[in-house]
Amino acid sequence: MNRGKMEEVSGGVCAVRGVKASGVKEGNKGLALILGGGSAAGMFTANKLPAETVIFTKRQIERSGRISAVIANSGCANSFTGEEGLRNAERMAELVSDAFEIPKEEVAVASTGPIGKPLDMNLIERQFKEVAKTLTESPEGSTRAAKAIMTTDTFHKEIAVRISEKGSSAGSNNSGDAVKVANAVSIGGIAKGSGMIFPHLEATMLAFIYTDASLSANTLRECLREAVENSFNMIVVDGDMSTNDLVLLVSTGDAECEVSESAFKHGLNYVCEHLARMIARDGEGATKFIEVRVKGAASVEDARRAARAVVRSPLVKCSLFGEKPFWGRVIAALGASGVEIERKGLKMWFGSLERRGGSKASELVAANGKILNPPSARRFLRERELFLEIDLGVGGEGKARAWGCDFSYDYVKINS
Amino acid sequence: MNRGKMEEVSGGVCAVRGVKASGVKEGNKGLALILGGGSAAGMFTANKLPAETVIFTKRQIERSGRISAVIANSGCANSFTGEEGLRNAERMAELVSDAFEIPKEEVAVASTGPIGKPLDMNLIERQFKEVAKTLTESPEGSTRAAKAIMTTDTFHKEIAVRISEKGSSAGSNNSGDAVKVANAVSIGGIAKGSGMIFPHLEATMLAFIYTDASLSANTLRECLREAVENSFNMIVVDGDMSTNDLVLLVSTGDAECEVSESAFKHGLNYVCEHLARMIARDGEGATKFIEVRVKGAASVEDARRAARAVVRSPLVKCSLFGEKPFWGRVIAALGASGVEIERKGLKMWFGSLERRGGSKASELVAANGKILNPPSARRFLRERELFLEIDLGVGGEGKARAWGCDFSYDYVKINS
Repeated sequence: MNRGKMEEVSGGVCAVRGVKASGVKEGNKGLALILGGGSAAGMFTANKLPAETVIFTKRQIERSGRISAVIANSGCANSFTGEEGLRNAERMAELVSDAFEIPKEEVAVASTGPIGKPLDMNLIERQFKEVAKTLTESPEGSTRAAKAIMTTDTFHKEIAVRISEKGSSAGSNNSGDAVKVANAVSIGGIAKGSGMIFPHLEATMLAFIYTDASLSANTLRECLREAVENSFNMIVVDGDMSTNDLVLLVSTGDAECEVSESAFKHGLNYVCEHLARMIARDGEGATKFIEVRVKGAASVEDARRAARAVVRSPLVKCSLFGEKPFWGRVIAALGASGVEIERKGLKMWFGSLERRGGSKASELVAANGKILNPPSARRFLRERELFLEIDLGVGGEGKARAWGCDFSYDYVKINS
Repeated sequence: MNRGKMEEVSGGVCAVRGVKASGVKEGNKGLALILGGGSAAGMFTANKLPAETVIFTKRQIERSGRISAVIANSGCANSFTGEEGLRNAERMAELVSDAFEIPKEEVAVASTGPIGKPLDMNLIERQFKEVAKTLTESPEGSTRAAKAIMTTDTFHKEIAVRISEKGSSAGSNNSGDAVKVANAVSIGGIAKGSGMIFPHLEATMLAFIYTDASLSANTLRECLREAVENSFNMIVVDGDMSTNDLVLLVSTGDAECEVSESAFKHGLNYVCEHLARMIARDGEGATKFIEVRVKGAASVEDARRAARAVVRSPLVKCSLFGEKPFWGRVIAALGASGVEIERKGLKMWFGSLERRGGSKASELVAANGKILNPPSARRFLRERELFLEIDLGVGGEGKARAWGCDFSYDYVKINS
């Protein structure tokens, strides 16, 4: 597989040629706007009571297969708001359509915030005018949009990469800045997420990803599904699935070169994983970040279920916060996940994600059907970035990674 | 259906003729012993990595279909302890078998506590001698056993009922004490549970239920399955499924009368629901108790899934603790459960489980696809015992109840 050459650049969605963005935030109410686009794919919450905003945007993409603009507000989920909520979502699309002469059915709408309250449309209209005036292709535009959609997030989330086929010159400058070069394809994204994070099946939280690679809606959909399954669908903050989750992948098709599909997928996977990890790291009240790696599973699906079960467990999360050995709680969570496990073949390692000079970066903590709990493993408990590696012992090829955070007093405080 | 006449009596398992019990507790290490029995049924954790204790006891019951004694320790789960763990479980059975001349295969063993550490068999043997000497048929025996198996529980859990066919005199005295009368059947139980509470499918936590009704192992199993599905399987404290859950139903067959199977089931359901509610009320760090009632579901299974999803949601639980309106979080949890819901037909009421003179005991908080959030509903938020009633709007006959508690700072403190 030719993965091409990939490098991280700055600029978020604005690293992609033809994409403008901006955003504004007043108190907890924000509005972001992204302009530019073409063929597009979307993945939406699997929640059976999706927000009116999600119902509207899903319908838009199904009809047109295209997105030319995204308007997203924070501070109100526009969820379980009835006919009025659907009309308000449509009104948001009309604002963009009227101002920029874009077909209304090519405007995607997204919302995040508390469920059940109607949108303040006067505020939205006022904020829209302000945002429309400040749209820019420069990196600040992406950052302003990413900040505008934050709710309980403590930092904004953006990333961009530039991909070129191996052997060709990607034409980057030395600083890695987002120079929009002719012989490379770009992928850039922004995301938000901190609480009510338990994306499931086809679900995820808000993420807007742009590329100038020229790809059909079908190809975009296929690439997005694969990337989301290994990134946003593998993070858990609290086990609550939102009514508003959505990820959009939009292609402007403006790149003047082509890269192989495998190189594009590699870049897209990188962008999605990076954004997903940022969301897990910024979990409400989080003081620790954990990566759970499962291998030796009967199937990839089993590996995913097992890894998600561990990062979801409230008891595992409390142990992380308390810096106490928690191998038994991991055993309970693995067993509760319902996947095939070979009791005596099961192995578990615990280690640090932070680079360490000299000393061993992980320790075996369970094997042969017993908890070993070596005292030497405890030194990792005090670190902020940890990993658990688990071999389910079934001898299969299935493997997966999931990401999560601890459960602290602050999670309870933020949500009560 | 003839439900017979049922009344609550004191005495726990010792309310059942022929049953003796006792227990001892030193620090966090306890040992309980119950003597007496006959045909028996058990339900065990669905966790794929069950404790060695559970593996042992499940095998015992499958072989003999009988239980003549239960020995249960707290402070160590004897889980993921390997061959040594299995040998220790067997050794516990032998202690009882040797001392009371009971076939070894009729002794059930149970454990609760931290996972992964081996049992201190010297302590178990010393405590066993003490407990064996203090066995008694009087109510204190049941209470001592119930206290011995407590871990983070803040109160012990026991209940007993006496059932007679309608029209017959149950021969009770005025105080409702556990007089062992000839013309009534008794059911008595003890249980423990406070954290790692998320029984699933065939799973539950420690509960030992005795009856003198003369019933076959098959009938006991059928009655127990039905009772557990509507009681222990419908409580959630934290969403973590234990490796050690088990419920035993043991019949001494000593009753000198008979009651109909429906009257027996009615009594057994009452006992199981009572013990289950006590466990939910005693959830780690809990300050509130909530009953979630779901109706209008496509099936009973849908109603159960929806009700369990609501009591499991960390965000719903945090809202309860913070006494904030949380209707939107319930909507998200219902939608996330994956069951069939009719958006516009969905209705939700919120109210108090505490008896109130005069004022309305519940308010409609969502209907017609919208959150109503009437200010008058907020007065209930400050109460300790609450209910949520949800009509999924599908028009089906499926209904179910689930019980849970809030998520407080103390839950995090206890577990970190």
